[in-house]
Amino acid sequence: MIYVIGLGPGGEDQMTPRALNALSRCDVIVGYKTYIDLIEPQFRGKCELVVSPMRGEVERCEDALRRSRDGHTVGLISSGDPGVYGMAGIMLELAGPGDDVEIVPGVTAACAAAAMLGAPLMHDFVILSLSDLLTPWELIEKRLEAAAIGDFVICLYNPMSHGRPDNLRKACGILMRHKSAQTAAGWVRNAGRDGEQTHLTTLGELADARLDMFCTVIIGNHATKIVNGRLVTPRGYLEKR
Amino acid sequence: MIYVIGLGPGGEDQMTPRALNALSRCDVIVGYKTYIDLIEPQFRGKCELVVSPMRGEVERCEDALRRSRDGHTVGLISSGDPGVYGMAGIMLELAGPGDDVEIVPGVTAACAAAAMLGAPLMHDFVILSLSDLLTPWELIEKRLEAAAIGDFVICLYNPMSHGRPDNLRKACGILMRHKSAQTAAGWVRNAGRDGEQTHLTTLGELADARLDMFCTVIIGNHATKIVNGRLVTPRGYLEKR
Repeated sequence: MIYVIGLGPGGEDQMTPRALNALSRCDVIVGYKTYIDLIEPQFRGKCELVVSPMRGEVERCEDALRRSRDGHTVGLISSGDPGVYGMAGIMLELAGPGDDVEIVPGVTAACAAAAMLGAPLMHDFVILSLSDLLTPWELIEKRLEAAAIGDFVICLYNPMSHGRPDNLRKACGILMRHKSAQTAAGWVRNAGRDGEQTHLTTLGELADARLDMFCTVIIGNHATKIVNGRLVTPRGYLEKR
Repeated sequence: MIYVIGLGPGGEDQMTPRALNALSRCDVIVGYKTYIDLIEPQFRGKCELVVSPMRGEVERCEDALRRSRDGHTVGLISSGDPGVYGMAGIMLELAGPGDDVEIVPGVTAACAAAAMLGAPLMHDFVILSLSDLLTPWELIEKRLEAAAIGDFVICLYNPMSHGRPDNLRKACGILMRHKSAQTAAGWVRNAGRDGEQTHLTTLGELADARLDMFCTVIIGNHATKIVNGRLVTPRGYLEKR
């Protein structure tokens, strides 16, 4: 048995009881170091904790599968929701018909970041990763353009890293072909963890922001605005009334 | 003080401890009947529970604000995440600079439904509501077309209701201008609650599905496929290797 478990955005108080129950049933928990550190205080001594290196996603899943086929109950952990750029997909691609895999959802970074900024995801939105490690940049550009044409609120994961310092600037340039540079936007660093930071900005200014892989960016639609220091996308209730 | 609290997709075990702690601090909890029923066993007798009618979203927020200004600690509850088509936006639009409002995120229906179907949201995706109560149908059409052109995975909220029995069929027609009728898709009814149902299908067949407001629909991108009975969108890890 393998549980692919979402820990939510950070602290223990954002992990669902369902996730905690699944972890309690495991005799092995596998994950990247940051996530093992998060659950270690509760599970050290109660089960085997296996720290797996970053970038070794496929090997991590294969390791979990092997252990499960040996008869163990295995937990594979990610932050946020394991089904959003997480481990759920690889695991289900690798598992055979005889493997028992359960996906345990969690609060994804988009929702955690939105709550900290205000309520920017109240209307139709896109979640899009700017990482071109696995996705050709041309496809990312095509999706950015489509999202802008559709006037979606846009939430960017992996907005910037050492390896790709210019992706956010390029992305903002593409969005500004169809969205005003004054479009309200915001970003959150370390949502739900130590060193949490939020920042309100505009699409035009965002192009010059210095962000990293721990940031989540939200860019509004045409109606998104700042209300008492929060980023809010109206759904239309007040206008209708 | 007002907490706008996401209960997650259903049962208590999907509500975060943070949400539960916020509820425990309230002396009044306001919500639509279904959600008050959900928390009643735990909170009856401990605080005032106010059942508010469906569709009365603005009045519900105004009621919560009034009570908070009278000195109460108020919880306003929604299912899923309150920042995704929920109560967070109206509340922040109505609140003044002196009102203290905290948004407590939850697991949104897209993530809950995805986990039940497999891992369809592993790549860039759109969340889009087919309800045209507050959004002109022309804008919904424009967004559907943009989402299809961008080859996004598409998650539809409010796919169908008595008042709009044809919206899903019309939406599928628009998507099929740019996506194959064979595109893998699925839907979930009552995710995380009694009477939970999942169904795998294709975009072409989906046009004829009889769904309701309790369903969440997910339509894949060009690479989404069925693997051992689950809907999976590859992120590209295996192809890269």
